[in-house]
Amino acid sequence: MEISIGRSLLEANDREAEELRQVFAANGLLVLNLISSPGAGKTSLLEKTLTALGGEFRFGVIEGDLQTDNDARRVEKSGAKAVQINTHGGCHLDSGMIREVIGRFNLDELDILFIENVGNLVCPVEFDLGEDCKIALLSVTEGDDKPEKYPRLFHLAEVLLLNKIDILPYVDFDLERAAGFARAARRDLKILPVSCRGEGHGLEAWYDWLRQARAAKKTLGKTTTNHRGVER
Amino acid sequence: MEISIGRSLLEANDREAEELRQVFAANGLLVLNLISSPGAGKTSLLEKTLTALGGEFRFGVIEGDLQTDNDARRVEKSGAKAVQINTHGGCHLDSGMIREVIGRFNLDELDILFIENVGNLVCPVEFDLGEDCKIALLSVTEGDDKPEKYPRLFHLAEVLLLNKIDILPYVDFDLERAAGFARAARRDLKILPVSCRGEGHGLEAWYDWLRQARAAKKTLGKTTTNHRGVER
Repeated sequence: MEISIGRSLLEANDREAEELRQVFAANGLLVLNLISSPGAGKTSLLEKTLTALGGEFRFGVIEGDLQTDNDARRVEKSGAKAVQINTHGGCHLDSGMIREVIGRFNLDELDILFIENVGNLVCPVEFDLGEDCKIALLSVTEGDDKPEKYPRLFHLAEVLLLNKIDILPYVDFDLERAAGFARAARRDLKILPVSCRGEGHGLEAWYDWLRQARAAKKTLGKTTTNHRGVER
Repeated sequence: MEISIGRSLLEANDREAEELRQVFAANGLLVLNLISSPGAGKTSLLEKTLTALGGEFRFGVIEGDLQTDNDARRVEKSGAKAVQINTHGGCHLDSGMIREVIGRFNLDELDILFIENVGNLVCPVEFDLGEDCKIALLSVTEGDDKPEKYPRLFHLAEVLLLNKIDILPYVDFDLERAAGFARAARRDLKILPVSCRGEGHGLEAWYDWLRQARAAKKTLGKTTTNHRGVER
């Protein structure tokens, strides 16, 4: 019984996500779903990105958290429009929550919409939000074994940002080992070591990926794989 | 409908947890449920604790992970008996999973049973496993805002271990700020800053807490509060 209820919930979510995806596509909008453990640096990545590329792209941000609107207030300092969703204990965002707030953006005035999911390496992974792709973050302080222990995110994400490499000398984290486990989950995963602290490090490669993804979206008007990682 | 299903699942879990709690009490066993984000250092804490106190107490460990038995193999090197539960995608342990493996321990030959939950700051919090209390870990690399954003765990846990304080100089983390948010969630929360790396740091205070909790359990044979934080 639990399984069938789980499935029907996911199927309802997927249908709504597909409708969102069509709305986003009609507006030529690139939509990215950021997923990580709590404190891996999703909001810091957004602060850096919105500030660095604010002259190139018009950004919107949806912030998902159990409580507080701290993150929306943080990213709005870059000048981007941000909308906070509080799940009040819920462990992930779903497509219904996105639909409820999407009317607060003028979608045809945006180029890229970031959705920062609830900090959780497990539950958000299964809920399609109509995004073009999932972006995984893993902080080097979390341990290089995490892509082996939580493979599903690394299977479904297109990009893995290995964040906080500025503190690599002070933790036991083998970049090659982590990359090996992550690539076992998804062979063509793009892995970018970055730091979002101070001046930042490695972020140009991330910005280039964003530029290419946005350009491809504008040209093709669609992505090549769907949420479940299956070719359309 | 979702809410009522959620409630009935939780109620069924709670009933089974209460049965487990009676079994544990009959054996005078102290049972601790370790909850944190992925990579906050639960397994490292266990490695240190089992090695340091292996001569004082007889330990058992239940390891919860989506995949792999890496953690069970890690902690078994200390000589303690460890049993791995793989949830295969599940985001938390529940009392049914504990009941299924509990027969693999000789409970009357144990003093303290650790249950290392799935790395997740949200879902495991609501599932009583029959433990005496929840122990929260928060790594200083996760940000001092986490007890404000994920208050439920810090409300229900009796002890908060602020881990990885060896890398405090290299991250932006205000111990006082984190402690303030955590104490807003639970006024009498015991907060212990520790490091489980190298020689370790601050762990004697944790060991003392364990000794006291074990002694109280042995004397009283019961805990003073139940899973929901309500006085019995």
